Amino acid sequence: MRNLKIVVGYVGTGYAGWQVQPGRATIQGVLETELSALLGEKVRIAGAGRTDAGVHARGQVANFPTSTRMPVAGLLLAINARLPEDVRILKVEEAPDMFHARADARAKEYRYRIVRAEVVSPFLAPFVLMVRARLDVGAMREAALRLIGRHDFTSFCPTQCRVDDKVRTVVGSEILETGDEIEYRVRADGFLHHMVRTFVGTLLLAGRGRLAAEAVPVILKARDRRAAGPVAPARGLILERVFYEEEM
Amino acid sequence: MRNLKIVVGYVGTGYAGWQVQPGRATIQGVLETELSALLGEKVRIAGAGRTDAGVHARGQVANFPTSTRMPVAGLLLAINARLPEDVRILKVEEAPDMFHARADARAKEYRYRIVRAEVVSPFLAPFVLMVRARLDVGAMREAALRLIGRHDFTSFCPTQCRVDDKVRTVVGSEILETGDEIEYRVRADGFLHHMVRTFVGTLLLAGRGRLAAEAVPVILKARDRRAAGPVAPARGLILERVFYEEEM
Repeated sequence: MRNLKIVVGYVGTGYAGWQVQPGRATIQGVLETELSALLGEKVRIAGAGRTDAGVHARGQVANFPTSTRMPVAGLLLAINARLPEDVRILKVEEAPDMFHARADARAKEYRYRIVRAEVVSPFLAPFVLMVRARLDVGAMREAALRLIGRHDFTSFCPTQCRVDDKVRTVVGSEILETGDEIEYRVRADGFLHHMVRTFVGTLLLAGRGRLAAEAVPVILKARDRRAAGPVAPARGLILERVFYEEEM
Repeated sequence: MRNLKIVVGYVGTGYAGWQVQPGRATIQGVLETELSALLGEKVRIAGAGRTDAGVHARGQVANFPTSTRMPVAGLLLAINARLPEDVRILKVEEAPDMFHARADARAKEYRYRIVRAEVVSPFLAPFVLMVRARLDVGAMREAALRLIGRHDFTSFCPTQCRVDDKVRTVVGSEILETGDEIEYRVRADGFLHHMVRTFVGTLLLAGRGRLAAEAVPVILKARDRRAAGPVAPARGLILERVFYEEEM
């Protein structure tokens, strides 16, 4: 058996997220269906992480075992000819037998885009959160910096979150401003469910003057979901990249 | 009656073009339906030009007479709240009684995007033509320059084209290259049906070494549709801007 690593990009708008769900269009589902049909065998893929309904990806990573002898270059063209246009396999490569996209991921980077405008271009709309309120970008930047470090992020994931260990290490958390667009970039060794979107919801409170940067350590310490801001909408979020050992 | 001028942006992928057609989703149709519902009167709009099915616009212009007293800023927000996300009114302004978006248009600018890649990002796919063949960008640039000037463009519109006067003045026709993307920008006082897409189909022949730049004047002189290249796909085309007297 070969073990193939794939890098996947998708516009998440029309999907119920990454993970297979009966009766719903999902990214993993469409990939497994089309890979199975192409390769003539039942393909099950393991993704580096699950993205929620409506979340996009430019660099999701997955792997799957296969007995096909098809060369990777031919497989890349053949699978993309079958996939819907909003899901693309951007790269296919041979991976070591032991490689596992989720278990071996060392870090992930997400971006979240916010546009301050009365009207958003139809070309941007599916990929950004439109905000009409004035935002204090300096305050957002300050608050974002306080998220960096090794913390228990219980306050930033749903109460029913089933993971035992909610300690993660955020290695980058920054706000970039270009014209009327604000971009939040965050990198960590792992993310809890809704973590990035709850970061953004909290940073937006800071931008609106309803939360001081100094409150962020207090929210972290509270380990209480009610201490943080709301979950920002999915559409502004994109999984930018997954990092592995050799890429760190 | 007031006469309102609107600037419209749209992702044309899901529409049968600009012009109203019974039983099909069109840009003009959705604008007229939603403006009529919002303003409580039958609204008919006049567009600066018709775009074909699948063609996009960043700066289409239209106008319509209305008896509403709603201020333009409020109208902008209210109409966009009703419109589907892939059609946006980007600007509303009062226009002189005599202003007519089509009759008064002095020039239009279109862009056409081509990406040379094995796989195109799902974020770009609806807006570009993907080309796998090698393209000689210098040859395309040379051929594009030969389209500039006042010419009879009969060779670049369908045989059944009903316009009597097929003379137009192309004031700009250039090829820009950025990484693996090639962009064609063209500006003229007016365009015949399929004219830009036939320009692109012809420039692609030049890029593939199947047509020399010197052939372009010969094609123009032929006044025969069969002399030019094929019609390039709609998805790469975007109506960038319509120019009026005061903006020239």
